[in-house]
Amino acid sequence: MSKKEQHQDASQSHTPLGQLGEFGLIEHLTRDFDLRHASSLLGVGDDAAVIAGGDAALVVSTDLLIEGIHFDLMYHPLKHLGYKAVVVNLSDIYAMNAIPEQITVSVGVSNRFSVEAMEEFYAGIGRACELYHVDLVGGDTSSSNKGMIISVTAIGRARPEEIVRRSGAQVGDLVCVSGNLGAAYLGLQILEREKQIYLSQPDVQPDLEGQNYLIERQLKPEARRDLIRHLREAGIQPTAMIDISDGMASDLMHICKASGVGAYVEEGNIPMRQESELMALKFKLDPLTCALNGGEDYELLFTASADDLEKLRTLPDIYISGEIVSQDDGVTLHTNGGKIVPLTAPGWQHF
Amino acid sequence: MSKKEQHQDASQSHTPLGQLGEFGLIEHLTRDFDLRHASSLLGVGDDAAVIAGGDAALVVSTDLLIEGIHFDLMYHPLKHLGYKAVVVNLSDIYAMNAIPEQITVSVGVSNRFSVEAMEEFYAGIGRACELYHVDLVGGDTSSSNKGMIISVTAIGRARPEEIVRRSGAQVGDLVCVSGNLGAAYLGLQILEREKQIYLSQPDVQPDLEGQNYLIERQLKPEARRDLIRHLREAGIQPTAMIDISDGMASDLMHICKASGVGAYVEEGNIPMRQESELMALKFKLDPLTCALNGGEDYELLFTASADDLEKLRTLPDIYISGEIVSQDDGVTLHTNGGKIVPLTAPGWQHF
Repeated sequence: MSKKEQHQDASQSHTPLGQLGEFGLIEHLTRDFDLRHASSLLGVGDDAAVIAGGDAALVVSTDLLIEGIHFDLMYHPLKHLGYKAVVVNLSDIYAMNAIPEQITVSVGVSNRFSVEAMEEFYAGIGRACELYHVDLVGGDTSSSNKGMIISVTAIGRARPEEIVRRSGAQVGDLVCVSGNLGAAYLGLQILEREKQIYLSQPDVQPDLEGQNYLIERQLKPEARRDLIRHLREAGIQPTAMIDISDGMASDLMHICKASGVGAYVEEGNIPMRQESELMALKFKLDPLTCALNGGEDYELLFTASADDLEKLRTLPDIYISGEIVSQDDGVTLHTNGGKIVPLTAPGWQHF
Repeated sequence: MSKKEQHQDASQSHTPLGQLGEFGLIEHLTRDFDLRHASSLLGVGDDAAVIAGGDAALVVSTDLLIEGIHFDLMYHPLKHLGYKAVVVNLSDIYAMNAIPEQITVSVGVSNRFSVEAMEEFYAGIGRACELYHVDLVGGDTSSSNKGMIISVTAIGRARPEEIVRRSGAQVGDLVCVSGNLGAAYLGLQILEREKQIYLSQPDVQPDLEGQNYLIERQLKPEARRDLIRHLREAGIQPTAMIDISDGMASDLMHICKASGVGAYVEEGNIPMRQESELMALKFKLDPLTCALNGGEDYELLFTASADDLEKLRTLPDIYISGEIVSQDDGVTLHTNGGKIVPLTAPGWQHF
């Protein structure tokens, strides 16, 4: 194509990216892509892709993390960042009810980074590989003109019948969540507040005393590998599952949309730690909104048959927050005051 | 870690990234990473990782492309860029003698991009998927604060015994290359020249007449899938293989280092098109240097047993350029004038 043709192309219609939103955009762009290989069992649209690999199904997930958008090096130690970059990808593999085994990591950094800084970052990656028992098998380093860019691909394995998609939720299923919500978001608020104070008064030491839990949930989250093991031991096969990265409301809507169902959650059954509630009030934020829309909790949100209720009750860290209903009933919140309101999910508008 | 500790960390020693170089850096950072899974057949250090998947071996490669470092949107049409981003990854899979079947693509773009621009980019991805018969199975879009960032992961398959690593070259093996070299680099010189003219005189139309071949080798390269088929049909199993992304000299050195051998190439047997030679002279560049160090040709460089010489001669597009020798003899160039000089590979110093 000549430069002239390019200029003509550029003069065509311009729909702003924000009009479609992040989820809408990838759906829109990949809607005409066919799957040609029998080994491509599941394509774009879930937490991970599924590929046939002999008796096992291989589950592949990939994530791009960009400085200034997904993380802030002013308060994110590089070791924690390396750890988190791996963990958030593993979380996607667990959300398919599969066990991650390999990762590849590609990093772009400008030359303001030192070898020692990169060693810190890889130390965090190594720690995550060790704790989650995965192998780093590929990737490379490259330069970037501005900021740090991290791309992680995780590959996991499961028996084909074990794979849990977003699309299997049935009317009557229980809506379950694996842990308390909102803490990572409130940790972020604390870090952002301290950053602003530091920028205006560089000699003031940060006041992070007693807020370790919230901050760690933001900077060094864990993926719920233990839950996958517990579910298998208890003989529970979830009907649908997703990891909570955008916020429980948004992620529940992903399950409902993919499954063609509605759901309700009860305000009183949305797990939240007292310290998260108190911190929300300190920031003049609604605690419930933090829990429902905060995001980055990396807890697992899943649905299971009501027949599994007794089994679910024996598991640690399982909160039964609601129920799947018909699509016509929508996705709603039952408040403590007895009201039924539509669940809203602003999620994270990147564009 | 508190902010104070971070500051202390930051005050530790600082080795500039450039001191290790791109290849040195990833080697350095990943040297202590163990492989824990029996399914992790091959880790970092080749064109792609190899993972067991039933009877097949799965081959995984990942690449990060950053605007301003790896591509320039001023002259790279988005459709060609999407095509190239896929093709350069597939090239890594072919370089393992495997057949790619799936890709994932993650893209970060700022909101100066329109939906239509992203559609162009995905049209190029779709075209590559179609021509190379691969499935797009995952990935997403995200925002970036500056510039476009592309991360592609490709997954291929082969019988385990078919996989060709960089490390199998033996003394006496033939050094072969699948096509002419230097054209992509000279295409880049033309595009850079036209960009400079355009920036200083925006009303001057670009002069690309008759240079389509060189420009297309840069903007829309192809991966040598045909060669992999031809080698199989002829019953040739290369002993080592790599795709030429950094330049033949640099990539031959990768094979030699991994195999613990030396090599020589003969100046007269390094394939180059006449139009590349003429363009090199027009730019006052040494044609041989363009061929040996230009990079981005995405031809395959491989070694094969001398017993396969007759079979190799029946294949189209195979140039026998040299021979593997003992490590002590180094990696050298035999010039047309009868001199033996060390092969130098500046490659691409990113940092």
